[in-house]
Amino acid sequence: MNVTRAPELELMPASEAGRKFADLCEGHAAVFADRAADYDRNGVFAFENVQDLQNSGAIRATLPTQYGGLGVTSVLDLTVGINRLARGDASTAIAANMHLSAVWSLARQWQYLRDHDGHADLSAYELAFQLLGAGALICGAGSEPGTHVLFPLTKAVRTEGGWLLSGRKNFVSLSPVVDAFNVLCQVQHDDGNRWTAAALVIRDTEGLELKENWDGLGMRASGSHELILSNCFVPEDRLTKVGPWGEWTSAYLAGASAGNAALVGAFLGIAETARDYAINLLRTRRKGPSDRLLAERPALQHAVGKAEIDLSSCRAVLERCCRQWDEYLTRTEPDQIQLDHAHQLMKELQCTKTFVNKGAIDIVDVAMTVSGGSGYVSSNILSRLYRDVRSGPFMQPFSPNEAFEYIGKVVLGLPPDVE
Amino acid sequence: MNVTRAPELELMPASEAGRKFADLCEGHAAVFADRAADYDRNGVFAFENVQDLQNSGAIRATLPTQYGGLGVTSVLDLTVGINRLARGDASTAIAANMHLSAVWSLARQWQYLRDHDGHADLSAYELAFQLLGAGALICGAGSEPGTHVLFPLTKAVRTEGGWLLSGRKNFVSLSPVVDAFNVLCQVQHDDGNRWTAAALVIRDTEGLELKENWDGLGMRASGSHELILSNCFVPEDRLTKVGPWGEWTSAYLAGASAGNAALVGAFLGIAETARDYAINLLRTRRKGPSDRLLAERPALQHAVGKAEIDLSSCRAVLERCCRQWDEYLTRTEPDQIQLDHAHQLMKELQCTKTFVNKGAIDIVDVAMTVSGGSGYVSSNILSRLYRDVRSGPFMQPFSPNEAFEYIGKVVLGLPPDVE
Amino acid sequence: MNVTRAPELELMPASEAGRKFADLCEGHAAVFADRAADYDRNGVFAFENVQDLQNSGAIRATLPTQYGGLGVTSVLDLTVGINRLARGDASTAIAANMHLSAVWSLARQWQYLRDHDGHADLSAYELAFQLLGAGALICGAGSEPGTHVLFPLTKAVRTEGGWLLSGRKNFVSLSPVVDAFNVLCQVQHDDGNRWTAAALVIRDTEGLELKENWDGLGMRASGSHELILSNCFVPEDRLTKVGPWGEWTSAYLAGASAGNAALVGAFLGIAETARDYAINLLRTRRKGPSDRLLAERPALQHAVGKAEIDLSSCRAVLERCCRQWDEYLTRTEPDQIQLDHAHQLMKELQCTKTFVNKGAIDIVDVAMTVSGGSGYVSSNILSRLYRDVRSGPFMQPFSPNEAFEYIGKVVLGLPPDVE
Amino acid sequence: MNVTRAPELELMPASEAGRKFADLCEGHAAVFADRAADYDRNGVFAFENVQDLQNSGAIRATLPTQYGGLGVTSVLDLTVGINRLARGDASTAIAANMHLSAVWSLARQWQYLRDHDGHADLSAYELAFQLLGAGALICGAGSEPGTHVLFPLTKAVRTEGGWLLSGRKNFVSLSPVVDAFNVLCQVQHDDGNRWTAAALVIRDTEGLELKENWDGLGMRASGSHELILSNCFVPEDRLTKVGPWGEWTSAYLAGASAGNAALVGAFLGIAETARDYAINLLRTRRKGPSDRLLAERPALQHAVGKAEIDLSSCRAVLERCCRQWDEYLTRTEPDQIQLDHAHQLMKELQCTKTFVNKGAIDIVDVAMTVSGGSGYVSSNILSRLYRDVRSGPFMQPFSPNEAFEYIGKVVLGLPPDVE
Repeated sequence: MNVTRAPELELMPASEAGRKFADLCEGHAAVFADRAADYDRNGVFAFENVQDLQNSGAIRATLPTQYGGLGVTSVLDLTVGINRLARGDASTAIAANMHLSAVWSLARQWQYLRDHDGHADLSAYELAFQLLGAGALICGAGSEPGTHVLFPLTKAVRTEGGWLLSGRKNFVSLSPVVDAFNVLCQVQHDDGNRWTAAALVIRDTEGLELKENWDGLGMRASGSHELILSNCFVPEDRLTKVGPWGEWTSAYLAGASAGNAALVGAFLGIAETARDYAINLLRTRRKGPSDRLLAERPALQHAVGKAEIDLSSCRAVLERCCRQWDEYLTRTEPDQIQLDHAHQLMKELQCTKTFVNKGAIDIVDVAMTVSGGSGYVSSNILSRLYRDVRSGPFMQPFSPNEAFEYIGKVVLGLPPDVE
Repeated sequence: MNVTRAPELELMPASEAGRKFADLCEGHAAVFADRAADYDRNGVFAFENVQDLQNSGAIRATLPTQYGGLGVTSVLDLTVGINRLARGDASTAIAANMHLSAVWSLARQWQYLRDHDGHADLSAYELAFQLLGAGALICGAGSEPGTHVLFPLTKAVRTEGGWLLSGRKNFVSLSPVVDAFNVLCQVQHDDGNRWTAAALVIRDTEGLELKENWDGLGMRASGSHELILSNCFVPEDRLTKVGPWGEWTSAYLAGASAGNAALVGAFLGIAETARDYAINLLRTRRKGPSDRLLAERPALQHAVGKAEIDLSSCRAVLERCCRQWDEYLTRTEPDQIQLDHAHQLMKELQCTKTFVNKGAIDIVDVAMTVSGGSGYVSSNILSRLYRDVRSGPFMQPFSPNEAFEYIGKVVLGLPPDVE
Repeated sequence: MNVTRAPELELMPASEAGRKFADLCEGHAAVFADRAADYDRNGVFAFENVQDLQNSGAIRATLPTQYGGLGVTSVLDLTVGINRLARGDASTAIAANMHLSAVWSLARQWQYLRDHDGHADLSAYELAFQLLGAGALICGAGSEPGTHVLFPLTKAVRTEGGWLLSGRKNFVSLSPVVDAFNVLCQVQHDDGNRWTAAALVIRDTEGLELKENWDGLGMRASGSHELILSNCFVPEDRLTKVGPWGEWTSAYLAGASAGNAALVGAFLGIAETARDYAINLLRTRRKGPSDRLLAERPALQHAVGKAEIDLSSCRAVLERCCRQWDEYLTRTEPDQIQLDHAHQLMKELQCTKTFVNKGAIDIVDVAMTVSGGSGYVSSNILSRLYRDVRSGPFMQPFSPNEAFEYIGKVVLGLPPDVE
Repeated sequence: MNVTRAPELELMPASEAGRKFADLCEGHAAVFADRAADYDRNGVFAFENVQDLQNSGAIRATLPTQYGGLGVTSVLDLTVGINRLARGDASTAIAANMHLSAVWSLARQWQYLRDHDGHADLSAYELAFQLLGAGALICGAGSEPGTHVLFPLTKAVRTEGGWLLSGRKNFVSLSPVVDAFNVLCQVQHDDGNRWTAAALVIRDTEGLELKENWDGLGMRASGSHELILSNCFVPEDRLTKVGPWGEWTSAYLAGASAGNAALVGAFLGIAETARDYAINLLRTRRKGPSDRLLAERPALQHAVGKAEIDLSSCRAVLERCCRQWDEYLTRTEPDQIQLDHAHQLMKELQCTKTFVNKGAIDIVDVAMTVSGGSGYVSSNILSRLYRDVRSGPFMQPFSPNEAFEYIGKVVLGLPPDVE
């Protein structure tokens, strides 16, 4: 044992699988960092980066090991990997998370069925895993303009042997390369009630149109395009009911945990890169008339102190939240999760999301400030990070507009309904 | 008298000249708003806008009336006009302010000499005013990389009949169209001490190179290029000493007041546009599942309330600061201004700059937040305002890094030296 | 003219009457400051201070000059005077404001009737003014536990020759010495609807009980006791209808302007005292090991800079709001005030209240921080200011809980109803 | 296993010893809560509470089990216990921490010597532990007016058989009941250099005077009196050198970890009590005119949401910091701790202290705000919590004035010297 090993301050994975994933991601991040400026300037999807993730196997991190994956199951592990990727290129990180978190959720269901239900037919999972192991990519398509994600307006209408889907999804990151979309939609139940369902729609399905129109302030290489569905046929067994339309379910809340936490990790990664850039700048640049190192100026030390408090607290908050989910999900079977417990944890996750997204924005802002103007020119990395990091608050399932109300209601013991 | 006239909440000019200027600027802003997105996307200078300002006479607002100007002399009036311009296009507003504030300063010197010194030779001013009346444009060139504006590194070296200037200036807004640059530089005094001087360098001077490389996160149409001076000849009478190099003088502080205050007005204007956009969006857009107007959602009312407090306070702070300068400059002759009084007012101006720039950024941020993601796409006006408004803190003479220290020292009665 | 007169940064009165009032108050503040610690420690009402205000005539500032008052009518002037008083003792300032603002409102009604209604019977006003000129004191009694001030629960029931009032009021500052209470109550209209009314209840009325139980965290010398009314008889002509119960009226909003703005001035005064104390401490105290003056430490300069930005902005915001009310009330007759205009101005006042109360709290907090612990002991003035200043947000008519919503609704054009 | 066990959101101890300690403290807190108002009003030391801690054994938590203690060695465990105590009475918690953390430090030294130095004479430790096991109480005396804790001005001068101590210490919590004070002082080294030393001064030593003058804004039952030392004799073996005067050492930094972290836990405890009080109030109180539960008002839900984000993040930040210290101290022998590693961890602790103290203040402030004025009266628990929680930023070793600079310097790789 090296007794003089330094304390570890950054987020660290919880398991061996997580460590492998994080290592791969750190390697990718170094390469992605070099490509990021070009992708950003041209607003094109990061095809090469995804190819690299395929080649290394990082994109299969959440796939069970039997199928060629790394077998990452911990919320913290997924979060750490995405955090590392985002240090190099946040667009790629949030796009990759689309696939990784969808597979995480699938693997979790499969594992439960395998272990608890001797009669369950797992063949659909096995087929899916084989395809995923061979390189297939999927992504969720949840957001829609004009409604909350809990109330999808996209409709699935019964037809012979399956369903016909019609609707419009936006912010579909990773869309340029996925083989299938996991589309949240509503179905009319036999008893007349509406249900929310998830339908896996294969890319070449007739009626599916990807409008490659993503042109954002930031996250420009994420391919967050619009998806138009016009009577897309989905076979019976590719549509799964999630729960009553507009109602929270413990399955929904738990299923969203890893993907949402990992997204938060991405924004932390942006902040870490901005902070490291600024620290390095302050430690190497001098300014007249005294020509002292910038690092020696008290006002800049103060600014760095402020940013460090933000960084330290963001890491702590995200880590604790991931551990809480991991601890709870490990000791609680999917069918035993109580809705109020899931809301308690989702409340913590929304506290975390709100806190870390704001903290990350503030850290990048301080980095911009201490750059003294050099960070404001387009060729400077800070000008990209400043735009990328601002997308954090818009991520699902709660914008800052809604998060305070949700958190407040859960704390006050009121039903956290969405209007 | 219309007894039911509503209270006036926005900044209003102080004089008739100011009202004319503000009216012209409001008219321009409406037109500039339509052009702003294209200029921004392409990163090109707003040539048409400047032509419009020439045609209307707005660009001559601070020129004495005898020479075809509007005769604006009030700090508040200049600030209100720039505020109005910035509502349409902030790049144009800060570029125009370069010229307007330089002429404001010139006119103030001329007026004093004319009124107090019967023997003063005013011919240089008169020639300048005639040229300016005929459409000539000038801009200051103060900033340099690696030093504080109080310590210019650009050097003026004596030569036959004048000076040779060499150095490098950045962030020279309006540079694509100006006829001359007012360059801050240092000269070696006869007694060996260094002085700061201002040298008027004509555009076609040999050795002057404008590097048209401005490519910023925002303010993309401002033409804030770099200016390289290599032994540029400046005739004797076009170089004026400002004060000892690196020392504050009351002349410097007073001369900077109008231009700096007006810049703050520009950032307020950006915020006003963002806020109006957001209010309009909330009053017209509905969202599922309840389909209520966004305006009816308590969380969004709360956000609007927060932004309104920011707006109301930014307006108040900027107005009071301008009035204080106007009151002081009106009752105090230029040669009677005490350095400590000038620092008191500059301290107020730095409080104002720090406060309003932050408030403006916060208002745009709230507008972005309540847009619910729609403001994050490049085609939305908010994505431009979000980038433009972030340049405010970098404006001269104090970045946020330095402003707190300067303010604190003035309050504590310590010499506010810059290191 | 003294050309070297320094810029004036503190709030200044608008008229000659205001200047007289402010001068008196500054004189009082110096004396009150010496008594404040004892009053605070013992939690007793500031009887001597009120006597001083009687002796000097300051307490009659808003009484018309014909009746021995100073004739202060400007919102700004009242605010400046209360601001000055609060620098010495905030408890006395808010107590005195109870009387001063009530008389301000009365004088305003009288002036309007006198100038516009040749047939109005002004004898009641004249009698009241004679009594007030002879030293009578009154105060409003608006707040009640468990309801919003717009919905008083205290009831006035018709009886022979007048009304019988029953209810409970709290936070009745100045109550130990007033001769009459102006009680907000509800009456049943002939058509069955409820109205809000103001009833003047003489101190020795049977059924009136003052529970001298005020024991607050701060403002301990303000005598903000509870008032219990049990079938108190009020003659017909001492009850005036204000408007429909629970509805905003322009009369209510305009009538509340001066008193509410002046309260904000009191909290600014607390902050000014804390700030001056801290500045003085930093300029005179040294600390080891370097034994440098505290003022020379960059971290403390930074803190002072932050507090100065708060102070400068609080002054600006409060001044502008007062001027807007003054400007509007001067050019608009009471019966011509539109409800939406009154809401616009009240919205500004609520922005001002929210902003300045927070700013004042922050300034005192910075003063506490830079005191390095010495401010935390009970004998230090900061420990009183820290407690006093915290009462600001609780002042009528909107707590911070409600202010954002009110402001947001007014801005969004929605009816600002109180639930 | 109860599969439906709820997620655990509060801080939890790390070991069995910690659990015992936390359980005892929770029991005490319930009782202390009832006594807190009286202690606070009368400003007297909490003698009964300390007696209870003696009786239960909680006060011996950090004493090794061989000597009758609970054997708590984890930084997190100590922090959790103090956190629980503070929920009932923060004055008692910080006073008890004086003893508990001093013994923690002693036990840590003893354990190291015992395990690594076969020849070490442990008899002094053993005697001390026997006395402590029998109920003796000690406290540190570090703070002095006018200097930083790293530069004690109290002097130890050589005398026959020991030292004579003279100086003045303040904020000596627990002083009314301790049997000995651990006094930080400076000694002249043989080579002429000054060293910092810790001297154990028995209570009845001649020349020791405890000025029982503690009268603070809050923490009124903590007995944080002044200690005057006038030539107090300290035998040779009761003075231990700590390191060069004014220099950081890894021993100093590591020795301060548990006590400082636990203090932060106390302020978190105050915030938790305030928050629970507010939540309960909102869930049970109604307000007119609508008479809805306060909990149902969106503005109050928003406020609760904000406070919850603060609470959640404060818990996470404190827990992670404690775990980092525990992890490092567990795997690193005391004599192997590198100074730069210790600064890294102390930097994290200062981030934590700054963050949690501010967060705790903010949470109490929100509780005060949502109380709508009822929390502002002296009899309400919030008015005590509001005063108590404000002492947090003054705790050693860094005030907010110094913390940013320290943190900034460590991050920037500069020596974090104190001026």
